[in-house]
Amino acid sequence: MQLSEISSPADIRKMSIDQLKTLCDDLRRTFLTKISAHGGHVGPNLGLVEATVALHYVFDTPKDKIVFDVSHQTYIHKMLTGRIEAFLDPDKYDDVTGYTNPHESPYDLFTIGHTSTAVSLAGGIAKGRDLLNQKYNVVALVGDGSLSGGEAFEGLDNGATLDSNFIVIVNDNEMSIAENHGGLYGNLAELRKTRGNAPDNYFKTLGYDYIYVGEGNNVEALIDAFRKVKDTDHPVVVHIHTDKGKGYKPAEEHKEQWHWSMPFDLATGNLLHPDASENYADIFADEMLKQMKANPGVCVLTAGTPGVIGFTPELRKKAGKQFIDVGIAEQEAVAMASGIAKAGGRPCFGVNSSFIQRAYDQLSQDVAINNTPVVLNIFYGTILGLNDVTHLGWFDIALISNIPGWVFLAPTCVEEYLAMQRWAMRQQDYPVAIRIPGGKLCHCDTTVDTDYSNLNKYKIVKEGDTVAIIGAGSFLSLAIETATLLEKLGIKATVINPRYLSGVDNAMLDDLKRNHKAVITLEDGILDGGFGEKIARYYGPTDMKVGCYGLKKKFEDRYDYTSILEANHLTAPQISDDILALLAN
Amino acid sequence: MQLSEISSPADIRKMSIDQLKTLCDDLRRTFLTKISAHGGHVGPNLGLVEATVALHYVFDTPKDKIVFDVSHQTYIHKMLTGRIEAFLDPDKYDDVTGYTNPHESPYDLFTIGHTSTAVSLAGGIAKGRDLLNQKYNVVALVGDGSLSGGEAFEGLDNGATLDSNFIVIVNDNEMSIAENHGGLYGNLAELRKTRGNAPDNYFKTLGYDYIYVGEGNNVEALIDAFRKVKDTDHPVVVHIHTDKGKGYKPAEEHKEQWHWSMPFDLATGNLLHPDASENYADIFADEMLKQMKANPGVCVLTAGTPGVIGFTPELRKKAGKQFIDVGIAEQEAVAMASGIAKAGGRPCFGVNSSFIQRAYDQLSQDVAINNTPVVLNIFYGTILGLNDVTHLGWFDIALISNIPGWVFLAPTCVEEYLAMQRWAMRQQDYPVAIRIPGGKLCHCDTTVDTDYSNLNKYKIVKEGDTVAIIGAGSFLSLAIETATLLEKLGIKATVINPRYLSGVDNAMLDDLKRNHKAVITLEDGILDGGFGEKIARYYGPTDMKVGCYGLKKKFEDRYDYTSILEANHLTAPQISDDILALLAN
Repeated sequence: MQLSEISSPADIRKMSIDQLKTLCDDLRRTFLTKISAHGGHVGPNLGLVEATVALHYVFDTPKDKIVFDVSHQTYIHKMLTGRIEAFLDPDKYDDVTGYTNPHESPYDLFTIGHTSTAVSLAGGIAKGRDLLNQKYNVVALVGDGSLSGGEAFEGLDNGATLDSNFIVIVNDNEMSIAENHGGLYGNLAELRKTRGNAPDNYFKTLGYDYIYVGEGNNVEALIDAFRKVKDTDHPVVVHIHTDKGKGYKPAEEHKEQWHWSMPFDLATGNLLHPDASENYADIFADEMLKQMKANPGVCVLTAGTPGVIGFTPELRKKAGKQFIDVGIAEQEAVAMASGIAKAGGRPCFGVNSSFIQRAYDQLSQDVAINNTPVVLNIFYGTILGLNDVTHLGWFDIALISNIPGWVFLAPTCVEEYLAMQRWAMRQQDYPVAIRIPGGKLCHCDTTVDTDYSNLNKYKIVKEGDTVAIIGAGSFLSLAIETATLLEKLGIKATVINPRYLSGVDNAMLDDLKRNHKAVITLEDGILDGGFGEKIARYYGPTDMKVGCYGLKKKFEDRYDYTSILEANHLTAPQISDDILALLAN
Repeated sequence: MQLSEISSPADIRKMSIDQLKTLCDDLRRTFLTKISAHGGHVGPNLGLVEATVALHYVFDTPKDKIVFDVSHQTYIHKMLTGRIEAFLDPDKYDDVTGYTNPHESPYDLFTIGHTSTAVSLAGGIAKGRDLLNQKYNVVALVGDGSLSGGEAFEGLDNGATLDSNFIVIVNDNEMSIAENHGGLYGNLAELRKTRGNAPDNYFKTLGYDYIYVGEGNNVEALIDAFRKVKDTDHPVVVHIHTDKGKGYKPAEEHKEQWHWSMPFDLATGNLLHPDASENYADIFADEMLKQMKANPGVCVLTAGTPGVIGFTPELRKKAGKQFIDVGIAEQEAVAMASGIAKAGGRPCFGVNSSFIQRAYDQLSQDVAINNTPVVLNIFYGTILGLNDVTHLGWFDIALISNIPGWVFLAPTCVEEYLAMQRWAMRQQDYPVAIRIPGGKLCHCDTTVDTDYSNLNKYKIVKEGDTVAIIGAGSFLSLAIETATLLEKLGIKATVINPRYLSGVDNAMLDDLKRNHKAVITLEDGILDGGFGEKIARYYGPTDMKVGCYGLKKKFEDRYDYTSILEANHLTAPQISDDILALLAN
């Protein structure tokens, strides 16, 4: 059977084991052809080809429900569930997202992109099924890397108490994105070594029945195991040992590098468009290594994404015990950092904007209330970064800046970033978050301050009158661009770099009233709960007109940068036109 | 030795075992005398008298560090660490908080009030100690109930990888606030039954060395165990089995009721000032039981605090499988609710304002992005509720209303609450959060709408002109009061019940421009990121003056309601004066 003939899992349920093996080869080859041209998650999908085929072979999907954790390993699942064209036809490559998506298919239960959620979501489905007295299998598939997340533990702990069908497949490929961290992984290793017969079994302590499958890339062995648990009347874990990157040598040999890749040459594994340009990950790693050398108390924390913050395996080795990967466990990273600071260390947690969402309570309770000088570096907090709906970097301003005590800084260029980071790591008075600028990396042509302890002092970049444009972080350049347009029209706008997202410069805002009629705020994120609203509230009782620019409160998936900026009036010509209209009123 | 002579733990380290036993009796008696007159956490402290004495006897505090989880069990600790007067002298009862507090004592490491944080915080201290090459013991004390929280798991999982001294004391009293829920508790039961020799051991699977102490209220046995682990060079768990409420019969027999108590008669256990007045917990439970009866898909979730939402043991029994306690695991409650809704059930999660902070990411990723019709009821989201710094109900408006997709409703009275809750549970289009009103419970004297599907339609309660006062939720009464004052001064203010915290009624706000010069917003929470700022931003480019009232961004601990309202200009006379000044400008 040609892959193009597979319109649903029913088509593969008639196949023999040998045919299934051939199918796996075909799927793997087709996947590699697309992914090498298109980019995407490589290793997670290659490792799960056989398990995906076995799942759809054994279970009666979509009546039976499968929830995939993170869902970055569902490319093969998509190929088997009516979406094969998006893998065969280059013109249709972008018809599917890189994650499960109920808008695409009834085989996809949830839009998922964060880790450690599947067991909880699937547990909820099982509970809902039981309340309504229905019958079907509920399966959660979760990777070993995701087990370090607190939500996964909470899901497992509760799922075990379901008095009914609940199947958790633990896809153990001995890797998170990088190597695993956490005591639990010792137990997984012991379970692998003993083929499931270790003296202490994590899953059994939580109350699960347990099956071990050592040959997680053997479709026949997987089918046997899944058949054993299908229609079970109680919670069971099937622990399968798979090979991340299976079937593509470079990905088998360099698992971390091949977790995700830009387009590459299939023969050599070399990137088609290698990008050696300067970036903040390298700048961060370089700076922090220097600080570590100068002060043994300095340490960098990551929650399972060392690559995002520039710490390659080589640099991690160099940093030694001053580099701490807590696994995918953002709550732990923040709370642990608070403890480190309390003990006199100088911790910096580098984290993606959308992942710090996991630790709101810890930012507030474990850090802010205790005023421990924890430093956060927020990566990808920008409209111009990750554009999958689950990875939007739009919400961190509202998340962090409204917690009392946190100083949230928005550098606009490399030099200002470094100055702020050095101050943040040096001072002991506040928890400080720094929002790494998005968009095109730029260097400053002016000197930057080295001391930020005089909180909430904005900086006038360009003196003017009538209208002041406050451009926060990466949007300072947009403010300057807008002012340049206005100047051509005879309006000499003031341009301000606010630097602090977490507070208002009352004195400067009051002074602007002397000779300004309007203040414009530009922020690289969502408007609701953000920076501009603080300015609008401050000027609320006055005659000053205020226009806030940023994103409307709405989720967007895989958006185009240009379109979203235009739709939200985030281009200099639009803002300049709006200002003219505002002043004419 | 008299208790009053104990100024630090050094004073008890010279005592014999018999003297320590007498000390425990004295501490328990003194504790009960204060707590019966003052109110506070009863059971957790009674159960931990011997362990607290043994800890300070064995460890060299404050050089050795002890981090207490939740820290509601630290009254005895306070008595031994220089704060005995606050337990002996009724005039000084309020000199200490109910939680650890570094402002009170160097023996208190952190201000803590949320659960499941101690292992992470202590792990951070141990890591900081190691980075700086220092030597001391680090001890985390965590209750069995707290182990259900994801942060506790993340802390244990990482703490196990410390290659140095790290001691986790698991205080197993077989209770959370109510009974425990989760598969893990089966393992704890097995460990108790086998005196630590169960075939599978949760703590060992994470990599800990392990000691079991069955006699957790025997000071001698505890001293022996703590001596064994003192100065250990690796992570170890000491699992102690204690009796919650030990030494006070009513608290031993009714553990849930006696977790925390208002002042009571020591002889009978009866409350001194029983309060049988109408409250939202009972109203919620009553309503939801009716809904459960009418629809088997309706269910109520709690994260370990059934009492807060009115579900007594008796009502839980009545609700049967339609009542779900996930243990202290807010992330799970939210994600599981999303799964239940996906499967066709109708889940409602009732939760304290400050505890929903644990689940920001789940509200966004697991619910909002998936648009599952999950219903939240937020309890104690008010300035006029819990006033410990760790339990402030001020932040939920900023937390929830800025996530795309969530409809956040603010009822102003019982009838409006019930109408909103019935609509929320009936509709299938949105996730809906409802903020239970704070302050004095009130009934409406007007009819309320039954359908809230026309989003963001505010309601004019009183027609007027010149100034409009928008009073959200429990602050509608403040708006009305202010308008009454203004009316005496000849200003007929418009009063608006916005009902929706998550959106702006553009049409109504535009219409107000006709004959209003100013709009005032009143919200029962923090201003930053809140409701008023949305109104200020909307009117930013116009001539409308906007004044936002709510709390300044600042943590407060054990504040006085009247003082905080006055300090933030949240009284009708102050607001009315401000309005006069604003209109005069």
